[in-house]
Amino acid sequence: MAKSFHPPVRTLMGPGPSDVNPRILEAVSRPTIGHLDPAFVGLMDEIKALLQFAFQTKNALTLPVSAPGSAGMETCFVNLVNPGDTVIVAQNGVFGGRMKENVERCGATAVMVQDEWGTAVDPQKVADALKANPDARVLAFVHAETSTGARSDAATLCKLASEHDCLSIVDAVTSLGGIELDVHGWGADAVYSGTQKCLSCIPGLSPVTFSDRAAAAIENRGRRAQSWFLDLELVMAYWGEGAQRAYHHTAPVNDLYALHEALVILEEEGLQSAWDRHQRNHDALAAGLEALGIEFVVDREYRLPQLNCVRFPDGIDDGAVRKTLLNDFQLEIGAGLGPLAGQVWRIGLMGFASNQKNVLLCLGALDAVLRQQGLAVDSGAAVAAAQAVYAAQS
Amino acid sequence: MAKSFHPPVRTLMGPGPSDVNPRILEAVSRPTIGHLDPAFVGLMDEIKALLQFAFQTKNALTLPVSAPGSAGMETCFVNLVNPGDTVIVAQNGVFGGRMKENVERCGATAVMVQDEWGTAVDPQKVADALKANPDARVLAFVHAETSTGARSDAATLCKLASEHDCLSIVDAVTSLGGIELDVHGWGADAVYSGTQKCLSCIPGLSPVTFSDRAAAAIENRGRRAQSWFLDLELVMAYWGEGAQRAYHHTAPVNDLYALHEALVILEEEGLQSAWDRHQRNHDALAAGLEALGIEFVVDREYRLPQLNCVRFPDGIDDGAVRKTLLNDFQLEIGAGLGPLAGQVWRIGLMGFASNQKNVLLCLGALDAVLRQQGLAVDSGAAVAAAQAVYAAQS
Repeated sequence: MAKSFHPPVRTLMGPGPSDVNPRILEAVSRPTIGHLDPAFVGLMDEIKALLQFAFQTKNALTLPVSAPGSAGMETCFVNLVNPGDTVIVAQNGVFGGRMKENVERCGATAVMVQDEWGTAVDPQKVADALKANPDARVLAFVHAETSTGARSDAATLCKLASEHDCLSIVDAVTSLGGIELDVHGWGADAVYSGTQKCLSCIPGLSPVTFSDRAAAAIENRGRRAQSWFLDLELVMAYWGEGAQRAYHHTAPVNDLYALHEALVILEEEGLQSAWDRHQRNHDALAAGLEALGIEFVVDREYRLPQLNCVRFPDGIDDGAVRKTLLNDFQLEIGAGLGPLAGQVWRIGLMGFASNQKNVLLCLGALDAVLRQQGLAVDSGAAVAAAQAVYAAQS
Repeated sequence: MAKSFHPPVRTLMGPGPSDVNPRILEAVSRPTIGHLDPAFVGLMDEIKALLQFAFQTKNALTLPVSAPGSAGMETCFVNLVNPGDTVIVAQNGVFGGRMKENVERCGATAVMVQDEWGTAVDPQKVADALKANPDARVLAFVHAETSTGARSDAATLCKLASEHDCLSIVDAVTSLGGIELDVHGWGADAVYSGTQKCLSCIPGLSPVTFSDRAAAAIENRGRRAQSWFLDLELVMAYWGEGAQRAYHHTAPVNDLYALHEALVILEEEGLQSAWDRHQRNHDALAAGLEALGIEFVVDREYRLPQLNCVRFPDGIDDGAVRKTLLNDFQLEIGAGLGPLAGQVWRIGLMGFASNQKNVLLCLGALDAVLRQQGLAVDSGAAVAAAQAVYAAQS
């Protein structure tokens, strides 16, 4: 006979999920109401307005997809990419590869623009690819690569797309709430995110937003999307303004309570304050890691403050370190992916998890574990260096 | 500035979501852990075993899809239906129509077998369609039609499919946990359900199970599924036994806590006891409704105890009644759909909501509201009739 499951209480400093704000854990447990209840319809309107705030847009087509970020990605592709289309995909990590998969499963051709993992997408290469493929209809790229910690210049890439009459599809899973994301200012056409990164919400939903240009492309595509569940023409009949809320699928009511609370918290803090906080805690963590002799994969200019991808010292047993951190410190950090597997750690400082306590815990724990592993560590220097950054800031 | 959302406390007796057991609301708010955490991997194994118990199967390919029931439906179709296939779809309500949409979006042809809404699928018509379409590869039907409250003979329909060398796709969204569902005994090939019906869990996940025959068809299909998110070959690398838990998408960790707790509760009660409870409360509700002069749409033999579809008396203002129930009694019941819109109510007695308190509340409230509407009601008779059924049972 199975028993109730009581999870260990971890500190989540991996690539997500990140530590969930207790206010959000309380919100998710509020009593369930029906997905057609007038009170729920009011909640949907507020969530839409709060997502528009978070994305910095007035796009009417802004809503949370009822599934994780990869479903948000698929929503963008199945609604905007038609069979036979050419799509330029910039890849500088795992998620560009997943975009390629999506393009191909839509019966379209992906023209890949490759950049080294850990670097930003090179706008010049993208411009060249757009010129070489005048029939391309879409440019897709990742704003904040969770697999490497690199930030790409979304403003420039969206502008390039628009100049070449392409729609832009932007992966903002790890950027929303953590760094500047200006959907309107950049003219991004289709943007998807996740709840479990810098919104510090539970995982399971994917906020998306589509420009009027993208919405028009969906209306005029002259075919049904290959997915019924992700077909925005149907989803919008439920989420749309003034619509009669036509039943599409049963909304994940409690998850939406959680997302609403996460967005209320973000609005209370303010976007700029949230971004500043992510930067401050990153600066402190970076000072501490440098004191431990640990180097960043990504050049300073392109580093994501919320996802710190660092090379661990030679001779270190990657698996053993992460296991010790988890078992002895209840601390989760992330392993490397793809070509970076076995070479890097990914240390997240996302949303609620981006705080001084976590920075100092992580540095203190790494200090202890690296010493255990026989590395000559100037013990205490990491925490002191981080603390000095905080002292200088205050 | 938006404020925290505090939902009204409703009694959910519509077509789902149903009242969520407080144990499940508590479980969903437990601290989030990572989707690759060893503790989480243990939880996944337990969920899989508990789903096998609930579905009555040993199918290795048994897991919760990370999205609502309609995504579970799509998972079955995009993984088993190939472009150019012929699929027999039995329709006797809304959800057969949705199956047709799924078939067509897979590039296949749906041969529809129509039965009147409120009746069961006629096995003879299905047998005829299978004979007339020897190239058909799949038979799809709804076990428990949520739009009408009719139960179809899943055992016979699955047998017919198998005799004609077809795979069966079975919608068990509303049946799982409420009435007998014998995946192994019936030889069902692909079965999907939802969490927000008779499991009384929060909405958002879709348990699915696939027979070895269906799993082999997926392995040998020689193409990639058109959906990346729902591609079972990829999903299984994460959920599979002994696999290295290859990262696919971020699992909805807290929702899975909730599902686990819901399944623990079902195991504690036992399947037969849960089905008996649903029947008992249905019998009491039916006695009360009859005392109010309200008739069932579905013949007794095919009635779902968990979804009572009833014609409301002539001259009643449907919208006004449901609004009064909601506002004055905090009680949600469901409206009719499709050809039954404006003619019926759908009164759910699902999972935790299937209890004496809800039956008596609903009958008492209907009694009062019908009297308000000017109907000659033998006041008190409904509650008394239901209570007499409980008394006779105990």
